[in-house]
Amino acid sequence: MRVEFVNPFLASLVNVLTTMAQLEIEPEKPHLKKGTVAKGDVSGLIGLVGPQTKGSFSVSFEENLALEIMNRMLGEKPSSINEEVTDMVGEITNMVTGGAKRLLAEKGFDFDMATPIVVSGRDHTITHKSDGPIIIMPFKSQFGSAHIEICFDK
Amino acid sequence: MRVEFVNPFLASLVNVLTTMAQLEIEPEKPHLKKGTVAKGDVSGLIGLVGPQTKGSFSVSFEENLALEIMNRMLGEKPSSINEEVTDMVGEITNMVTGGAKRLLAEKGFDFDMATPIVVSGRDHTITHKSDGPIIIMPFKSQFGSAHIEICFDK
Repeated sequence: MRVEFVNPFLASLVNVLTTMAQLEIEPEKPHLKKGTVAKGDVSGLIGLVGPQTKGSFSVSFEENLALEIMNRMLGEKPSSINEEVTDMVGEITNMVTGGAKRLLAEKGFDFDMATPIVVSGRDHTITHKSDGPIIIMPFKSQFGSAHIEICFDK
Repeated sequence: MRVEFVNPFLASLVNVLTTMAQLEIEPEKPHLKKGTVAKGDVSGLIGLVGPQTKGSFSVSFEENLALEIMNRMLGEKPSSINEEVTDMVGEITNMVTGGAKRLLAEKGFDFDMATPIVVSGRDHTITHKSDGPIIIMPFKSQFGSAHIEICFDK
């Protein structure tokens, strides 16, 4: 897991939320995940397979933030996480990973993306079981918090 | 998503739990996931990327069943889902997918596995966001239930 992997994912989430939902989200300091447990209410996960390595990516949202993104992207705000919201989180997961993939390919680091999986459930936790360190990138907004986790083998 | 994909995953979970935990688990009828929401307390997920297709796999356990598998595999039964349990679920996810991968490769269907991700949280739900139908395979045991979900694009 190299430090230069951080920015493409971080920039990609900020970019997707700004362009798709006109929503400003503020990145906080990325750090290695060590014993900390980051919780979310709805998360998008995607597996990554490349010639040099494999790994996994996740993006987790607090419910209220996910509902506000839904409101801004589609003009409707459901009262709780429903199938439309999980569809949207799946799309965001694809777009963020796809954006980071393009940026990383320019640096000669290639991987293919599996299909996204969305988890919903109050205060669930996600543990990436790769051999490498897990990098966690927290984000804040006026509607709630989000965080990205990425992990590559070696 | 082809019907012949079902048996390799089903047989692989039964085989892993029998050999690693001496635990009998009874497969119930696999079916297409349509509007049904299957809940679990701890789940292992893995992305699949192949030349013909891509997709995702998940296996979800009720807490009590996960703890009993832990007890039988490692001789210790924690009172709730902790890091050892998520490690074990990650390993089971790898073993079941790896077993199915070998069986499917014999039929000329190849894919690479990403690294597993484990989700824990009471009654969470998982939604596979592939283009293809999702197949769900329920299992029963005296300690609780489990289910597998698989989905491939196209």
